[in-house]
Amino acid sequence: MDETRQMTNVNEQEAALVAELFSALSDPSRVQILSALMQGEMNVGDLAEIVGISHSAVSHHMRHLRQMRLVRARKDGRHVFYCLDDEHVRDLLDRGLEHVRHG
Amino acid sequence: MDETRQMTNVNEQEAALVAELFSALSDPSRVQILSALMQGEMNVGDLAEIVGISHSAVSHHMRHLRQMRLVRARKDGRHVFYCLDDEHVRDLLDRGLEHVRHG
Repeated sequence: MDETRQMTNVNEQEAALVAELFSALSDPSRVQILSALMQGEMNVGDLAEIVGISHSAVSHHMRHLRQMRLVRARKDGRHVFYCLDDEHVRDLLDRGLEHVRHG
Repeated sequence: MDETRQMTNVNEQEAALVAELFSALSDPSRVQILSALMQGEMNVGDLAEIVGISHSAVSHHMRHLRQMRLVRARKDGRHVFYCLDDEHVRDLLDRGLEHVRHG
């Protein structure tokens, strides 16, 4: 599979979806939430503490991130744990960080 | 180099820079411009035709994309040609498209 050539065939609808995906990643708190989840699954309380924002702000971000399939939720009794949806998400963030750091 | 673990060490300032980078990618026209540049360097006229927006709109996007080091410009006489800044940019877009397509 020649992945490096995929993008040359992007159509208008796909461009809109890709833009929407990147838009979900264009918030510093969401980037921090996702980077925290690279260490393993966490609940809203853990994330609120790490990122330094309120529980309700985290919950709001988690809804958005779930909609964009960037995170998954797992229920364990009364608790909900979040993790990155898949390795694509990790890759995406790593590439972004690489770009920012190599400049 | 264990690139897959980079992101776990992201600090607040880096999170802001990563978010800013993704923000530059969160526009459908800019995604289309970058995907067109995967085929090789192009000038504003070429890009305006491919994306279906005005020359001045393309020029505006190119300024933003250059600031974010997503594209580079090369002057040839009176003409300016644009290309992707590096392979990171291509990777980033490919990962985004993968995510959108695999869902």
